[in-house]
Amino acid sequence: MYLCTLMERLSFIGSGNVATHLALALYAKGYTIAEVYSPTSAHAERLAKQIGAKSITDIKTLGKTDIYIIAVNDKAIYELVEAMPLTSALVLHTAGSVEMKALQKFPNHGVLYPLQTLHRERCVDMSAIPFLIEANTIDNLTRITDLAGSLSSTVRNISSEQRQKMHLAAVFACNFVNALLASARDIAGDDFALLAPLVRNTVEKAFQSNHPKEVQTGPALRGDITTMNKHLDMLKAHPKLQEAYSLLSKIIENGELRIEN
Amino acid sequence: MYLCTLMERLSFIGSGNVATHLALALYAKGYTIAEVYSPTSAHAERLAKQIGAKSITDIKTLGKTDIYIIAVNDKAIYELVEAMPLTSALVLHTAGSVEMKALQKFPNHGVLYPLQTLHRERCVDMSAIPFLIEANTIDNLTRITDLAGSLSSTVRNISSEQRQKMHLAAVFACNFVNALLASARDIAGDDFALLAPLVRNTVEKAFQSNHPKEVQTGPALRGDITTMNKHLDMLKAHPKLQEAYSLLSKIIENGELRIEN
Repeated sequence: MYLCTLMERLSFIGSGNVATHLALALYAKGYTIAEVYSPTSAHAERLAKQIGAKSITDIKTLGKTDIYIIAVNDKAIYELVEAMPLTSALVLHTAGSVEMKALQKFPNHGVLYPLQTLHRERCVDMSAIPFLIEANTIDNLTRITDLAGSLSSTVRNISSEQRQKMHLAAVFACNFVNALLASARDIAGDDFALLAPLVRNTVEKAFQSNHPKEVQTGPALRGDITTMNKHLDMLKAHPKLQEAYSLLSKIIENGELRIEN
Repeated sequence: MYLCTLMERLSFIGSGNVATHLALALYAKGYTIAEVYSPTSAHAERLAKQIGAKSITDIKTLGKTDIYIIAVNDKAIYELVEAMPLTSALVLHTAGSVEMKALQKFPNHGVLYPLQTLHRERCVDMSAIPFLIEANTIDNLTRITDLAGSLSSTVRNISSEQRQKMHLAAVFACNFVNALLASARDIAGDDFALLAPLVRNTVEKAFQSNHPKEVQTGPALRGDITTMNKHLDMLKAHPKLQEAYSLLSKIIENGELRIEN
């Protein structure tokens, strides 16, 4: 018995955080990366030389390949799609908030969205990252599933609308959570590290629950106005944090509305 | 060689979440718990019978012991201190936001604050919980250090003022973080679980950093107005979440002010 897999040739449009992590991970899995495009020659070259690819700076000179992966910021996706030559190759983008139909100019298109913040300089265990994918045909869905499945054990086919909701949810659960941790760091000073067990416990309880509302604790939930007023007083020199304290306390007191899925 | 430790006798004023977890953990470490007070007889008995203690419902009938641990809500602390007979025993409270001097009626007093949310029904690894302690004399500090040290490997002597800051920081890092996770759950629906690796990664990066501001990511930090407007539009039926989105984005854009320590 032997296993014969025909690996598709890839090219990357973009050389930033997402492009770099995906390209390095796919290269490590044995994929051939033909070209890396960036308008900035040094950026294209930095990534290209790590993965044996050709670097290009003019999108019009893009060579042939099996799959093009557009990993650039949301606004640039639209501009690049317009500039790219028409092709029957599979064209993907990697954005959370951009609808798949932004790529409808191409007969074969889809989405490969890693649900994780990726920093070029920071290592990440790609196998633990959920990939949210979408495709315009069943065949293309299979191709994207194979590609994502070579990197991660969690690959989910979801609609553009649900992917946009996941991206918004990630802003709350990741970007805003980090902003609150930054506020806590400002308040606690160097003792911030003592909060680590509490925060880890909070996150684990939230994901073990049916809904994080069920494991909510604190002065706002208890209606402990004495403590809340004391806290608001401590924040009086910091109006934005005071405002955040009031607003988040109100959200806890009232519960939130469920958004239709 | 043998080890001789004189273990102090304890009594608990209160029988709620914190009292229950502390009493059970200290009982398991070999401490004798003499009495458990609660105005509600069934509550006092529920805890007392688990730890071989006597239950009492009239604070005036409190018997002698070495250390009284007042584990009740903030408001009740003041009322109970007034009602308690004067004693030369060590009297502690377990609250984050109440100053040690609330106990100044007693010649020996201090604070034993576990930096963790404790639910009666939920198991917790006490050894991982930081205990923030304070005492009115060096001798009492030693006694509280021994008591806390029997439960946890992290015992820190900090002032009432810094403890109050830690409690406020914990509201941001725990209660408000959970409220954001609840919002993310409402937005993502049943796909919420897919966010777990992202959130865990966010928390670990924040605690590995010098300051969580340094690892901030997302549309607000990038000044990506297109995405932010799209998100605000998606939240238009949910004004409180929309308000939270705007406010937290502003906090990310501007950074926060450092509170003096």
